[in-house]
Amino acid sequence: MKRKLTVVKVGGEIVENLEALMLFLGKFLKIESDFLILVHGGGRDADEMQRKLGIPIQKFEGKRITDAETLEVIVMCYSAINKKIVAKLQALNTLPIGLCGADFDLIRCKKREVKEIDYGFVGDVQYVSGNKLKSFIEAGIIPVLSPVTHDGQGQLLNTNADTVASEIAKSLSDDYDVELTYCFGKKGVLSDENNDDSVIPVITNVMFDRLRKEGVINKGMIPKLENAFSAINAGVTQVLITHADQIADKKAGTIIVM
Amino acid sequence: MKRKLTVVKVGGEIVENLEALMLFLGKFLKIESDFLILVHGGGRDADEMQRKLGIPIQKFEGKRITDAETLEVIVMCYSAINKKIVAKLQALNTLPIGLCGADFDLIRCKKREVKEIDYGFVGDVQYVSGNKLKSFIEAGIIPVLSPVTHDGQGQLLNTNADTVASEIAKSLSDDYDVELTYCFGKKGVLSDENNDDSVIPVITNVMFDRLRKEGVINKGMIPKLENAFSAINAGVTQVLITHADQIADKKAGTIIVM
Repeated sequence: MKRKLTVVKVGGEIVENLEALMLFLGKFLKIESDFLILVHGGGRDADEMQRKLGIPIQKFEGKRITDAETLEVIVMCYSAINKKIVAKLQALNTLPIGLCGADFDLIRCKKREVKEIDYGFVGDVQYVSGNKLKSFIEAGIIPVLSPVTHDGQGQLLNTNADTVASEIAKSLSDDYDVELTYCFGKKGVLSDENNDDSVIPVITNVMFDRLRKEGVINKGMIPKLENAFSAINAGVTQVLITHADQIADKKAGTIIVM
Repeated sequence: MKRKLTVVKVGGEIVENLEALMLFLGKFLKIESDFLILVHGGGRDADEMQRKLGIPIQKFEGKRITDAETLEVIVMCYSAINKKIVAKLQALNTLPIGLCGADFDLIRCKKREVKEIDYGFVGDVQYVSGNKLKSFIEAGIIPVLSPVTHDGQGQLLNTNADTVASEIAKSLSDDYDVELTYCFGKKGVLSDENNDDSVIPVITNVMFDRLRKEGVINKGMIPKLENAFSAINAGVTQVLITHADQIADKKAGTIIVM
């Protein structure tokens, strides 16, 4: 039987607030799993820093357009959050290591091709070096990943954190029984976005197609679920979409299965 | 015979300029050594960012006073430089990993006690986990260290990069023949600060006492040399103080020996 690895992706709204972060990390460490990997975002901090520095925030369909100045901010903010999380995890008597995709060539990306939109320094994942992550977790270390990646030619790139988490989960699914948990500010995927308690308990591939056609699942939930199913269809055991407060609670949130 | 490890500390003026950084890294990789560790600064980037954000730069005897706002900037700027260096080293076909002192509990510090001056979130080194750095270098990895450290209680701290380099060198001097190289914008320690060619080729403990009394060595060179001798007196083989352009040249710069 494979041992269990849980890859958790936590959004900026949690990690950028010190109190919420400590609460979250306490729950993160309560997850029943042999191994843990944490992937974080940080978009809100980056937004705020862009405002302070007078760098316009440009987004298309919710995705950040990352010009050279924006990339500088992204790298600063995400890397700083990464180090804060590591320091806090250390205080909780664990052995964390904070990394980005450039470190150790962990996540190699390709700068997104310019089609209708030039997203700038945005990277699409080419590969994740799962074996290197494996060597860390097998040594009792908790890798904490920022979604800053690189192209192997010296260029840092901005990659979607949900995608980074999904690709990491996939890269280790041969070796472990991998669960991927996306946590955010809602209790799960909602059937009625105005009703926080309308959590859909389980979504399968077939249901996803239907819910998308019906418009029940829309906007930012579509790429999140696409990342979830990409993981599931590549061998990840299950994906949980849940509130940060309930990540250690197996009965809460939306479970994504094949 | 012990194998050779070279710990290089490079200042902000080199790493903050992309062209100078690439030139520097090319020379760094030409150093004749079995193992390499790079420690970087980044104070100029931090100064510039503080100005942009309207955060006053406070220094006492050249040392930064690091209040909470300043620490945020330090962590952002140093961590971003760290990732840039890692991406560039990757492009030079090496396997770098960018870390701060909080990662993996590499460098544990104590917040400096308030005496005449409150330096704020500045950390004095308690220990360096040399064995963990050893496991990286023995695996063919080049650790790239930012001087952001932690106190083990969740607080990040700002530590002098020269001291970080010296403490790392000391922590590994039992296992390796360690050379510590401080590179900066001068050709070495100068006997006449207005004459760039007045490099003192060798300085011993005894000479240092004399040169300091005579005022030949003064200001910022005093703590740098104190860090150098701290390393030498703890078993580091030699310290080289030299220009970034000549780090791979054994005949250039000032050599510090016991």
